[in-house]
Parts: sequence; C-alpha cells; structure tokens
Amino acid sequence: MKVGIVGCGQLSRMLALAGWPMGFRFSFLADPDEPVRCIEGLGSVVRLDTTMTARDVYGGLGNPDVITVERESVNVPLLRQLKVFCPVYPDPDIVWAIQNRHREKTLVAGLGIPLSPWEVFREREPVQEAITRIGGLPVVIKSTEEGYDGHNQWIIDSRETLEAFEKEREKLLQGPAAKDPHEWIVEQKIAFDREISVIGARSPDGNILIYTPGENSHNQGILVHSVIPAPDLSGPLHNKARDYIYRLLQETGYVGVLAVECFVAGNELLVNELAPRVHNSGHWTIDGAATSQFENHLRAITSLPLGNTAHQGGVIGMVNLLGQKHSDDSQAPDQLITQGTYLHWYNKTSRPGRKLGHLNILAENEEELSGSFKYLQEAQATIP
Amino acid sequence: MKVGIVGCGQLSRMLALAGWPMGFRFSFLADPDEPVRCIEGLGSVVRLDTTMTARDVYGGLGNPDVITVERESVNVPLLRQLKVFCPVYPDPDIVWAIQNRHREKTLVAGLGIPLSPWEVFREREPVQEAITRIGGLPVVIKSTEEGYDGHNQWIIDSRETLEAFEKEREKLLQGPAAKDPHEWIVEQKIAFDREISVIGARSPDGNILIYTPGENSHNQGILVHSVIPAPDLSGPLHNKARDYIYRLLQETGYVGVLAVECFVAGNELLVNELAPRVHNSGHWTIDGAATSQFENHLRAITSLPLGNTAHQGGVIGMVNLLGQKHSDDSQAPDQLITQGTYLHWYNKTSRPGRKLGHLNILAENEEELSGSFKYLQEAQATIP
Repeated sequence: MKVGIVGCGQLSRMLALAGWPMGFRFSFLADPDEPVRCIEGLGSVVRLDTTMTARDVYGGLGNPDVITVERESVNVPLLRQLKVFCPVYPDPDIVWAIQNRHREKTLVAGLGIPLSPWEVFREREPVQEAITRIGGLPVVIKSTEEGYDGHNQWIIDSRETLEAFEKEREKLLQGPAAKDPHEWIVEQKIAFDREISVIGARSPDGNILIYTPGENSHNQGILVHSVIPAPDLSGPLHNKARDYIYRLLQETGYVGVLAVECFVAGNELLVNELAPRVHNSGHWTIDGAATSQFENHLRAITSLPLGNTAHQGGVIGMVNLLGQKHSDDSQAPDQLITQGTYLHWYNKTSRPGRKLGHLNILAENEEELSGSFKYLQEAQATIP
Repeated sequence: MKVGIVGCGQLSRMLALAGWPMGFRFSFLADPDEPVRCIEGLGSVVRLDTTMTARDVYGGLGNPDVITVERESVNVPLLRQLKVFCPVYPDPDIVWAIQNRHREKTLVAGLGIPLSPWEVFREREPVQEAITRIGGLPVVIKSTEEGYDGHNQWIIDSRETLEAFEKEREKLLQGPAAKDPHEWIVEQKIAFDREISVIGARSPDGNILIYTPGENSHNQGILVHSVIPAPDLSGPLHNKARDYIYRLLQETGYVGVLAVECFVAGNELLVNELAPRVHNSGHWTIDGAATSQFENHLRAITSLPLGNTAHQGGVIGMVNLLGQKHSDDSQAPDQLITQGTYLHWYNKTSRPGRKLGHLNILAENEEELSGSFKYLQEAQATIP
C-alpha cells in the first residue's frame, strides 16, 4: 500500500512509523520552505512549486494508492484535482470546511451540535454590535483562517483590549500580507471548567470507532498535557462527546481520523474546534490504546477494518516536550524515559515553544500520573 | 543514540522500527550474501568482507554508541574486537556460549537448571553408547551449531532412523563442507506436554523484567503460533519459568533480551534452548505488552530504564505468516487485518516456509482466539 501525505511534520512522521510495520510505503508533499527533518528517511519527498500540475504531484509522489493530509492548512484546489488519480481522504470538501472557522462553526451548528455563541465580521465591519449580540464581554476574536496553537487569537475583556485589536486589524488590512476578504469570528468567552477532546475514526464502509475522551491542559494556546480518561467525566458528558463525534463523522461521510475539542461548562459540552486529521491530543494512543490513532487513520483511508480503540487499564498521560531555546541539535532527551514512560521524538531543530516530541505515561492511577507530570515539568528545563 | 546491529533480517527490522520513534539511528552489518530487504530504508548497511578490520566495520557502521546482534550465528571474534570501540550487548562471550548446543547445555546445567538428559559425541564416535547412557530410544540428535527452525536435527526412534543418521553423518564428514571438529548432541526425546517460552530483559545496572510466558506450537520445527498467557500454566511451573530466566540473566550478567524455550512434562520444566536476542515467540509484545521486546532490548543495551513488561488483558495470539511459494512480490496480506489483529510485514521475497510476517491477535478469551487461528489457517493459503 502506497500512501502520499501532504505535509512533513511530526504527524506525518508518526503516520509513517505506524505504517512501516505493515509494509506500507510513504511519500510526502512539502511546501516550498517546509522543513522535512521529521520524515527524513521514511519516504520520498516532493517539494511543491507553482509550476507543478496535479499530475506532476501525483507522479512525484510515486502514484500512491491514497493521499491524505497532516494539517488543515493545505491547498484544497490541488487536493480536489488529485482526486482524479486516487482517493483523497479526508475529502477535500471537509478539509475546506474545517480550515476556516466560519465554515467550521456553520457545519457544527448545522448538525445541531452546541457551540459557544459566535458571530462573524469582515474587513472593517463594526465588531461592537457582534459582541453585543453574543452577550457582551468577555469574548475571543479569532481570524477565520491560519489560526493554530493560539496564533491569531485575541482575548477581549475590556475597552483597552478591544482598541488594541482594532489597531491590529487596521494594520493588517493595510499591510502587505492583506488578502481579500479578511474575516474574523467573535465568540463568547465561555467560563469553561475544562477542555476535553474526543477522537474517532470512520472507514469508507461507514464503520466508526471512538477513543476514550481525554482532558487537555493548555498554556498560552499550546497543549501541555492530556489525561486519559478525562478524570471524573460524568456519564452524560461522556455520551455527549461520543454523540458529537459520531454525528460529525457519520453526517459528513468522513473517512479517516477526526479530532473534536470541547469545552465542559457545568452539564454543557460545547464544541471548540475540529481537526480533520490525527491530533496532538491523541498521541497517547500510540502506547495507551489497542490501536493508535495513526494506525487507525491509515486503516481507514486504505479501506482496512479499523482497529480496536479501547484504552489500556489505569490512567494514561501525554506530555508535550517543548523546545527551550534555539538549537540545531536535536538530541532526544533519553533521560526522561522511565519504566512507565515512552518517548516519541521528532528529530526537529529546537526553537522556544516548538513541539519537539512527547512522552506517553502509563500510570496506575491519577496520583501516580500527577507525580510524573510534576517530575517532567522540572525535567523539561533540560531539553535543548 | 546510534545502534549498530549485526544482521539484516526481520528482527533487525523490528528493532529499528522500535527505536525510530525514540529518535534512535541505526546501521546494519550484512554478511556477504545476506538479503537486506527487511531493513531497507531504516539505516545504512555495511557489507562484511574478509579484508575488513574491526575498525573498518565500526567506522562503516557510523561509530555507533552500542552494537548488538539479531542472531546467534555471528562472527564472535569480530564482536570481541568491536568491544574496543563501544559496548557490545549481549556480551560476545554469552553469544559464543549459546551459539553452540554443547556449550549452551553446559551453561544451563551449570546453573542447576533442568534439561532433557543429553550427551555429546564428535566425529565418528559411536552414538549407540551415548543413547544408552541417556536411557535409550527415542532420542533427538542435533548438530551443536547451525541449527535453527528444525535444521540439522534428526529424530531417532528406530534402528532404521539411526542408520539413516549414520549415513548422513558419514556423508557430512567426507563432504566438501566438512569442518573440524564435527560435533553433535544427543538428547532424550522428552514426551513433553507442550512447549512454552519465557522472555526477559536485563539492563547493565542489574534490573530484570520478565514477560508473561506463552505457549508455542511448531510444525516441522518452525514456530506456527504462540498463545499468551500460556493456557492453564500452573503456579509452580510459572514460577519455575521466571526463576530459570532470572537466574540465566543474573548469573551471566546478561544485557539485553534473552529468550528461553522450555518443555513442560507433567510438573517438570526442562530448558530446550536459549536465544541471546529478541525472539519470534516474543513478537506478540509489540501489540500485547506495555513495552515490546524490541524496545526493551534497545532500552537495555543503551542503559535506559526497562519498560513495563505487563501484558494487556485478555488473551494474545501470534501467528507466523509463512511463504507458500517462490515470489519476488512481497505484497502485504492486508486482507488478514481485522479489528483485533495487527499485521507485521517484513518486505521479504517469498519462499515456501519462509517467515514473511506475523499477525498479533488481541482476543477476549481463548475461544475467540482459536476462532481467529482457524480463520487465519485457511486465509494463509492466500499469501504469495
């Protein structure tokens, strides 16, 4: 089975490492400036340039049996053209919907799945009216595209923060990177108790399997760690999480792995965002589930039966290993490995805050896990 | 961490695939004619030739941090010379002991661990006396070296089979491949109930972790499938298995993964043979244990803490996928994948009886597992 992947980051790396044992072959499509260290050695790389036709890309990738993506920020028209040559999963239409927050929220709301109250505004449209309509401050403003890990987001909780956003908007609209149209959504800033995420896979024949929801902790928009199962998640909330992802997978005819991030607010579960791909909050599945999200994504897109998604006993933790400083040296922090921890290292160059790897922790209980988290927090300072 | 592996077969492949996620780098030492398809793409390959010094080999392997082996049939003098440059685990001395059945049995017996009664004979020494000393027919004669998967073994249960062996011995001693000295061991053919194996790992600091013993079924000397845990293994037998491997690891100062195959005969547990490496009967650990034998071998030889060896709940099966005919086409039999099965494919050319891959099966109970075995037995005929 030959799989072409759009993107050359750690998600592509882990997809390839999940497929190699099964005898799968991989090729990767890189943007003009994209670093490829993560996937070096795992398959051939085609570097996209503006002169390439879809046929060139398909041939360059070695005529794969199927093409998939490791990110939502991709060239959707190209993906659509590639469908002439082989299946592209998830379908470019669903990637197109999710890569824009306006379309994404419209999709979720259209299925009757709850979201924080939101409004959209464009260009120089007044934002104050939209804020009033969703119930006043505090709110979060997000650009509809190109937002990830907290980028292009503004928390507005005062006249001052609103004015600061307005100034930045004006600069953006006049700046050299201005494109038409500029669009933002404004969301009620939910006083949520916590964030959970749920990951599921659907195969072309309609089979759906869902992983145990986990709880995520962020710092400045970047995932720090996840705990699986999400501690003390009530039965009704658990069922809601499963119901949301089931409907999203089923109603959109989705193929592959989908991730859904949700806010828990009392007895309410509100969708925050979707990712049409394997997801950071599912990295625990490599060591903590019968079948990893990466293997299940590959099984789904190649029409193989999905693998069991049951999580192992005990409590599972996932900790992102973030770069501390600039360094081209990418030595794996082997010293973090213990009897119950599993290191996954991406071979990247280090930059402050960059995700360089992660550790999965298989613990007996939550107490043992939080001990590991504490130890790791201190140990992280040793990462280059 | 850079690891050099002597050998380019499926065990090297699975070692590399276990190390890549941790950021390990690999290089492989191939015999002059050794096929390398299993490890293609997973690291650089050095092909041994008679002009090479140990320094040449070490440099060719890219100055690894540690060197290990995927088979016991290796050039031990070369391994000893490589110790000048980096650690070689397991130690060449223990590989040397185990690569010869006479030395192997002497080692096991020396630790007071039970074996089938055995005798050794060389060249044209009379075999009848040895047979009488160990209690008469039936016996098994095995050459002391170069025996694996049933090769170079003779079951002697009658005057006719003994005469046939004598003829073959005479031919061997006169043949072009004759080397000095020829040596065989003759073993009482135990009317054993079944064969189990136990796998353990020891790190340089003396930490030892042991996997759950499994039961193995062979056909003409080749492992067909394993079931883990070994069904209905009594407490005392279970403890004996753990005790044997613990003593072997501890008393020899072993570093890495060791496999011990044993015969169960009533309440007795007799060692059949050792393997100073990851072992076919441990392939289930990739999907069925918290840490695979491959990752634990790498952890051990790089002085990292061993990973938890607990097996997952339920019953785990491992089925070898054997080639049916000659074919250079090595298409993975994806059709064998189900929700509870995991395919591991080695990318080899197919030959009748050759191990081309294996399937791990995670089942609820033994009944479900034997259903899978039956299905797979039929499905195997479809493998190239």
